[in-house]
Amino acid sequence: MTEFTAPSRRQLLTAIGKAGGAAALYHAMTALGHAAPTQFNGPPKLSGARKGASVVVLGAGLAGMLAAYELSKAGYSVQVIEYQNRPGGRNYSLRGGDVVKEVGGAIQQVKFAPGNYLNPGPWRIPYHHQALLHYCQEFGVALEPFVQLNYNGYVHSDKAFGGKPQRYGEVATDFKGHIAELLAKAANKNALDDTINKEDRDKLVEAMRGWGVLDKDMAYKSSLKVSAQRGFDRPPGGGVGGAPTPSDIFGLDDVLDPRMWQTISFYFNNVMQTTMFQPVGGMDMIGKGFAKQLTGKIRYSSKVTKIAQGDSGVTISYEDTATGAKGEAKADWCVCTIPLPILSQIEVQASAPMQTAIKSVPYHSSCKIGLEMKRRFWEEDEQIYGGHSFTSQSISQLSYPSSGFFKKGPAVVLGAYAGGAAAFQFGGMTPEERIEEALKQGSVFHKQYRAEYSNGVAVAWSRLPWILGCASSWTDDIRKTHYQNLVGIDGRVVLAGEHASYVGAWMEAALLSSLDAVTRLHQRAQAA
Amino acid sequence: MTEFTAPSRRQLLTAIGKAGGAAALYHAMTALGHAAPTQFNGPPKLSGARKGASVVVLGAGLAGMLAAYELSKAGYSVQVIEYQNRPGGRNYSLRGGDVVKEVGGAIQQVKFAPGNYLNPGPWRIPYHHQALLHYCQEFGVALEPFVQLNYNGYVHSDKAFGGKPQRYGEVATDFKGHIAELLAKAANKNALDDTINKEDRDKLVEAMRGWGVLDKDMAYKSSLKVSAQRGFDRPPGGGVGGAPTPSDIFGLDDVLDPRMWQTISFYFNNVMQTTMFQPVGGMDMIGKGFAKQLTGKIRYSSKVTKIAQGDSGVTISYEDTATGAKGEAKADWCVCTIPLPILSQIEVQASAPMQTAIKSVPYHSSCKIGLEMKRRFWEEDEQIYGGHSFTSQSISQLSYPSSGFFKKGPAVVLGAYAGGAAAFQFGGMTPEERIEEALKQGSVFHKQYRAEYSNGVAVAWSRLPWILGCASSWTDDIRKTHYQNLVGIDGRVVLAGEHASYVGAWMEAALLSSLDAVTRLHQRAQAA
Repeated sequence: MTEFTAPSRRQLLTAIGKAGGAAALYHAMTALGHAAPTQFNGPPKLSGARKGASVVVLGAGLAGMLAAYELSKAGYSVQVIEYQNRPGGRNYSLRGGDVVKEVGGAIQQVKFAPGNYLNPGPWRIPYHHQALLHYCQEFGVALEPFVQLNYNGYVHSDKAFGGKPQRYGEVATDFKGHIAELLAKAANKNALDDTINKEDRDKLVEAMRGWGVLDKDMAYKSSLKVSAQRGFDRPPGGGVGGAPTPSDIFGLDDVLDPRMWQTISFYFNNVMQTTMFQPVGGMDMIGKGFAKQLTGKIRYSSKVTKIAQGDSGVTISYEDTATGAKGEAKADWCVCTIPLPILSQIEVQASAPMQTAIKSVPYHSSCKIGLEMKRRFWEEDEQIYGGHSFTSQSISQLSYPSSGFFKKGPAVVLGAYAGGAAAFQFGGMTPEERIEEALKQGSVFHKQYRAEYSNGVAVAWSRLPWILGCASSWTDDIRKTHYQNLVGIDGRVVLAGEHASYVGAWMEAALLSSLDAVTRLHQRAQAA
Repeated sequence: MTEFTAPSRRQLLTAIGKAGGAAALYHAMTALGHAAPTQFNGPPKLSGARKGASVVVLGAGLAGMLAAYELSKAGYSVQVIEYQNRPGGRNYSLRGGDVVKEVGGAIQQVKFAPGNYLNPGPWRIPYHHQALLHYCQEFGVALEPFVQLNYNGYVHSDKAFGGKPQRYGEVATDFKGHIAELLAKAANKNALDDTINKEDRDKLVEAMRGWGVLDKDMAYKSSLKVSAQRGFDRPPGGGVGGAPTPSDIFGLDDVLDPRMWQTISFYFNNVMQTTMFQPVGGMDMIGKGFAKQLTGKIRYSSKVTKIAQGDSGVTISYEDTATGAKGEAKADWCVCTIPLPILSQIEVQASAPMQTAIKSVPYHSSCKIGLEMKRRFWEEDEQIYGGHSFTSQSISQLSYPSSGFFKKGPAVVLGAYAGGAAAFQFGGMTPEERIEEALKQGSVFHKQYRAEYSNGVAVAWSRLPWILGCASSWTDDIRKTHYQNLVGIDGRVVLAGEHASYVGAWMEAALLSSLDAVTRLHQRAQAA
C-alpha cells in the first residue's frame, strides 16, 4: 500500500493549469503561497439564514458595520448598537466645528478651515489591503494616492549632521554609496571568499559599483554622477549658465545614525510600501460609506452596559448617553466589536477563557496632532509634496497632505504621530501643551513653522473615552495563551475587530476579523 | 593691504540671516548650494521693451510658447510659427481619433476609448522641476500624483529566477538583506579595520542588522520579521486562521542580477524620485495651457524654410503645409526652438560656429507603445496600482496608468519604453510589428496580456517627420566644443529648447533654456 504523499507544489500547479487555464493557475499560485498579498478572497457568500434569525452587533466601527452588512445580506435581522453619535469608530476625520472630549475633561474645538481635516486614526491604505479596497469600491468610496515615500522629505536625528535635518534622498543615496564602497572593498580583499563563490563575488562587486555609484577606484565620492542621484549643489539648467556643479556627500558616520537607516527601512515595511491610497475628502468617507448600507439599523449614542446570553439568545443592556434611558436589545446571536479596554469594563456572560482573554490584551496608545498652517510653505518654499519628515524627537514624524497640492490657503500637517512611551507622555499633557511641544519640535524642520501656524488639535488616544487606547498590542506569549480563546465563538457571542486579528492596527484587520467571525457565526447558526 | 578674501559660506549666511530673517536665509542657503533643487528662481522680470520691438518665435513647443509668453509680457510684438497643427511639440497626448503619420508612410489611427490616452513624449514631472510646476499653476493646469515607485510592480531578467518576473518589493528587500549579511560578516571578521574605526564598525554592524533584518546570528533568513517587509506566503489575517506564514527569500545569485540593482538604482535618480506629478487628463494639457496664453499669436501648419538675418532684423520664410503657399515673417529678433535634426536641414544665416554646432549634436530615439486593454487586470488580478514593471527585454518596461484607479472598462498601459539601440530596432519595424513585439514581451509579466488586448499605437520618435528623433544626446566632448556656440546669441537669433540645456530630455529643460534665452535676448535688445 502506498502511503499518502502530498503532491509537490509544482505537481499541483501543473494539474490546475491543465484543468482551468491561466486564470485558475494564477489563482492557485496565489493560494499556494506564491505572491500572496492578502487573505481576502472576495466577500463571503453567506445566504439562507434561518427565517427570523437575528444578530445584534455591538459597535459601528468598520468591523461591526461589515458584520451587519454581510449578515443582513445573508438574511439575518440585524441591529447595531454604537456608543458614539457617528459611525466609523477609529475611522474618523476631524473638521472645523468638531469637538474632541477627553477623559480628564479637556475639550478641544476644531477650527480648521472648510475642506481641511485630520485623520486621527487610520490615514493610509496599503495596496494589499484588498478587503478594504474591495468594500470601498462596493460602497462608492473614491480613493486617491497617498504619497508615502517622498525623497525630498527630511530626516532628522539629534545625533547626526550636527542636528540639522537632511533630505531623505541625500541620506539614502549616501548610505547606499558608503555601504557599497565598504562591501566592494571587503570583496576585493577576498574577505568574503569563505562565504560566496568567485562568480558571485564578481557579480557582487559590479552590483556595488552600479548600485552605489562608485568611481573607477571603487570609491564613493562627490561627483556629477553621484549628484544625479542625491541632487546637485547647482542643478543642471538651460542656456549659457546651464552647467551643473556636484554636491558634497555626507560622511559615513552621519549616515550610519540609527534614525537614518530606520527611516530607509520604514519604507520597506510591507504595510508601508507604495502604492498607498486614501479616501478623497477624509478617512471618514469609508465609515460613512459603510453606514449608508445600514440605514435605520444603527442605534447611536447608546452605551452597552451588559452582554448576557443563554440557550435561546443574547440580551444586550444599554443606556442612551444623552437621556440616560435604559434599553435592551435581544437577538439570537451577537457580534461584539467593542475595543477590549472598554469591553473589559462591561459585564459579559462568556466562558472564563474568553473573559480572561478580554482582560489580557494590552493596548498601545498614539498621539496625533493636526496643525493648520496658513499656507503650504513646505510646498512653496521647500518643494515637499506629501510624504513625511522623520525625527528622533518624540513627535516621531511630520506628514504633509497628500491632496490639494499647490493650493493657496491654509492646510493641515500631521505635526506629531507619537507612539510607544511618547504617546503616553503626550497624553499626560494638556492639549495646548501637546501642540506647543509639536510646534517646538517641528520647528527643527521648518523655520516658518511658528509664524505660519494657525490652529491645531491634539488627539491622545489613551484619553478618548470610547476606547482608552489606540489598538491592541499582542505579544507572542499573550497570543499563544489567549488569542484563540478571544476569537472563538463563545455560546452565542463572537468577537471581532482589529484586536481579533494578526494584522495589527489597520482597517483591514477589522474587516478580515469581521469576515471570519460572521462566516463562522453563520455556519454555527445554520448548524444550531 | 589686505587681499580680497571670499567670505566663508557660514559668514555669508550669518550676515544674510541678520539682514533679512529666516526667509532670506533659506533663500540664500538655496542659492549657495545647500539643498538646491532647481535653477528656477521665479519667472523673469522682463519689461520695457522698446516701442515696436518684435520677435518671431519658431516652434510652438514649450520652449517657444514660453518665450512668446514672457516676451509678450515684456512688451514685444510676438508671432509664433509652428509646423504642426497643434501646440505643444513633444508635449502631446494621443487619443481615440488621432492619427500618427510617420516618415516611410505608415499611418496609425488611434482607437482608444474616450478618456484614455498615451503620452508619447514627456509623461511625468519631478518635484524639483520648479519652472514647469510654476507655469502649470500660472496657467491653471491641474496636476495629480504620478505613481512612480510601486513595490508591487515586477522586475524581470532572462538571467535571474529562471526568467520568472518577481515583485520589486521582494527583490529589493532580499538584495538589501544579502548585502547586509555580507557586510556585517566582513566587519565582524575585522576586514574593514583599515578603513573605518571601531566606533563606526559597531554602528555599521548595528545598521546592517536593522536595515537588513538580520537574525541574531547576523544571517539573512526567511522569517516572519523578514516577511513583514518582503511579504508573506500567507499574510496575517483575522479570526481563527489569522496566523501568517513566512515567505521564502531569494538566493544571493538571483538578486545580484544587473537588472535587479539597476531597477533599484533607477528610483534613486534625482529626476525619478518621488513625488512626481502628471497633468490631470493627459500631458498635452500643459501645451494647451501654454497655448491659451497666446491666442491669435501662433501660426500653425507652417514649415520654416529659411532663417535670414541682417543688421535690421530677421526674415523667416515658411510654407503653409496644407496649401503650399509661401509666406514671410519679419521681426527684430528670432527665438528658434526647432529641434536640431530639423533645423540642420534648414538654411540658417548664422555664424559658422553656430552652424557647426547645429549639425553636431546627436539625437537619441525612443519608442513608446500604448496598449489599450479591455480591463485593468493588473489592478484587479495582481494588485498593481500605477508604477512600472522592468525587464531586460527591449521593451525595457511596462507602465500602468496613474489615474482612474479601480475603474471598470478599458485602460491604456505603456507597453514599451525602448531607448538606445532598441528604439531604432522598433523604429525599423512596422507599427503592427512593434505592437506584436510589445505583446509578446509584455506577456512575460501578464498571462492575461493577449486575451485582454484591444488596440494600440506605437510611436517611434526617429520616424516622426517633425523631429526625426527624441531628444538631444550630448556627450561631454561635443558639449565642450559646441554648447556655448549653440546657445549664444548669434546676431539677432537665439536658440532655445531642451537641446540648449544641460537638463536633458525633460520639459523643464525647454523652459529653463527658454527663460535664459529670452532674458539674454531682452538685455541685448535693450542695449542694441
